[in-house]
Amino acid sequence: MTKELPVVFDTLTVIGVGLIGSSVLRRARLGYGLARRLLAVDSNPDVCQRVHELQIADEVMTDAISAAQQSDCVMVCVPVGRIGSVAEKILPVMRTGSILTDVGSTKVSVIEAIRPVLERIVTPNIAYVPAHPMAGTEFSGPDAGLAMLFENRWCLLTPLEHTSFEAIEMIRVFWQRCGAHVRHMTPEHHDRVCAIVSHLPHLLAFTICGTADDLAEETRSEVLDFAASGFRDFTRIAASDPIMWRDIFLANKKALLEMFDRFMDSAETMAKAIEEENTAYIVDRIQRGREIRKRLIENQQA
Amino acid sequence: MTKELPVVFDTLTVIGVGLIGSSVLRRARLGYGLARRLLAVDSNPDVCQRVHELQIADEVMTDAISAAQQSDCVMVCVPVGRIGSVAEKILPVMRTGSILTDVGSTKVSVIEAIRPVLERIVTPNIAYVPAHPMAGTEFSGPDAGLAMLFENRWCLLTPLEHTSFEAIEMIRVFWQRCGAHVRHMTPEHHDRVCAIVSHLPHLLAFTICGTADDLAEETRSEVLDFAASGFRDFTRIAASDPIMWRDIFLANKKALLEMFDRFMDSAETMAKAIEEENTAYIVDRIQRGREIRKRLIENQQA
Repeated sequence: MTKELPVVFDTLTVIGVGLIGSSVLRRARLGYGLARRLLAVDSNPDVCQRVHELQIADEVMTDAISAAQQSDCVMVCVPVGRIGSVAEKILPVMRTGSILTDVGSTKVSVIEAIRPVLERIVTPNIAYVPAHPMAGTEFSGPDAGLAMLFENRWCLLTPLEHTSFEAIEMIRVFWQRCGAHVRHMTPEHHDRVCAIVSHLPHLLAFTICGTADDLAEETRSEVLDFAASGFRDFTRIAASDPIMWRDIFLANKKALLEMFDRFMDSAETMAKAIEEENTAYIVDRIQRGREIRKRLIENQQA
Repeated sequence: MTKELPVVFDTLTVIGVGLIGSSVLRRARLGYGLARRLLAVDSNPDVCQRVHELQIADEVMTDAISAAQQSDCVMVCVPVGRIGSVAEKILPVMRTGSILTDVGSTKVSVIEAIRPVLERIVTPNIAYVPAHPMAGTEFSGPDAGLAMLFENRWCLLTPLEHTSFEAIEMIRVFWQRCGAHVRHMTPEHHDRVCAIVSHLPHLLAFTICGTADDLAEETRSEVLDFAASGFRDFTRIAASDPIMWRDIFLANKKALLEMFDRFMDSAETMAKAIEEENTAYIVDRIQRGREIRKRLIENQQA
């Protein structure tokens, strides 16, 4: 794709310039028909300074309201726990016909926070399109962004009833031009799927690192020396941003704790099988993991 | 290193030609002063046929006794649950002054199985040196081996009291020439460290894949589609060989279940913190994971 494509948005504001926000800006900066003009907003002046140095936006500011007033699309890329309050601030000043979207990793609680604000505003024809690009690395901040981050990754849209088809379509095209494959689903279904494929694995990775850290000093220092590939993979997951993950855990509490309970039951049953040397059960469970892996590879996601 | 090095062993027998066994053979085949002559033993005739085709040994056979009679070192590379019975078979026919070693991922139970056999044999001066090269991939079988598999990885030795210094030294030099960093520790300490850095992570990875597999069909198919990096890393771990892991779990039951209990307590506390929205606790636990990761990178293990 080239810069000659008709752009999806004239002026795009990205609020929160972390890994995802700065990746969107980098991608849009390269063209791909995403936006003619890019405004970057971050509440942290140091981040703004860095974004300015990186030259990935036309204007950088701490004032979300001023940016929102100038934009036909505002994309909120702050941790999920703060999306609601950001929306509350900017929705009343957004322009007629403009689009609000977010990139939060949980959807039910974000929509619950935004829906009442949306119902209160009087400006006609403002659409809110919730989105979740399933991409990331263990790094965070404006320097961590990559223009190719979304290439061949999924972006899930969980649109609200009565949202204009045109608005949903613009967000779909936007993410496709970012390189993502777009799928629609309900917010509830989204949160359950993400609980098992992403949130629970992160919870377990943080926990096992904590468990290792609780060990007596002698063993702990050797854990670091001898971390085999098993533990190394867990620490890669566990290196992610604490505030982002705290927010995700709280925002998706219901689905996460449901999956957690299922996992704990399975884990207890597996431990009991090891205790009782129930070899058939142990092999069956291991076999299932292999099959899931095999299907993952067949799905070309591995 | 070149083929001109004085070799550590004249005739080396490798019993069990899976990932580790075939990697040792490949390495020795390239020289590195490991052994002049290589005998490969596998109870599976199909594996023998494949090893023959791969040309990674001078002779391939299903008969462990005949190979052991000709060797100054026998390295047992079968799953840990079978090391004891292999040792029982070959120790009585091994030559004066020869060395028995193994590559099992657990050490206490393997030593417990071998020690009484060792005490019964009458051939003078046979040494047993337990070893554990901490290397692997998620692949198995003779085709999975890599001559460079042990490069810059740890190999842990857990020698028994009264073992000759010369025998331990030969095994140490052998693994160093395989590219590994060698460390000594007690079998008990080894098993605790490996329980937390490797065995528990594998147990959890198998379990979470099983949990996903137990979900209703609709969610499960999407789990495969949307596996984010979190879940993908878990399935990579979970793709390992079922029989090998069944044996490791059973052989290291005591240390593994101790670490499992610690982990489950931590996990329950974390879930309770999420339930009660105890943000300080959640952030502290996540932070610890990051610190462990940071130290891992500093230790150049990441």
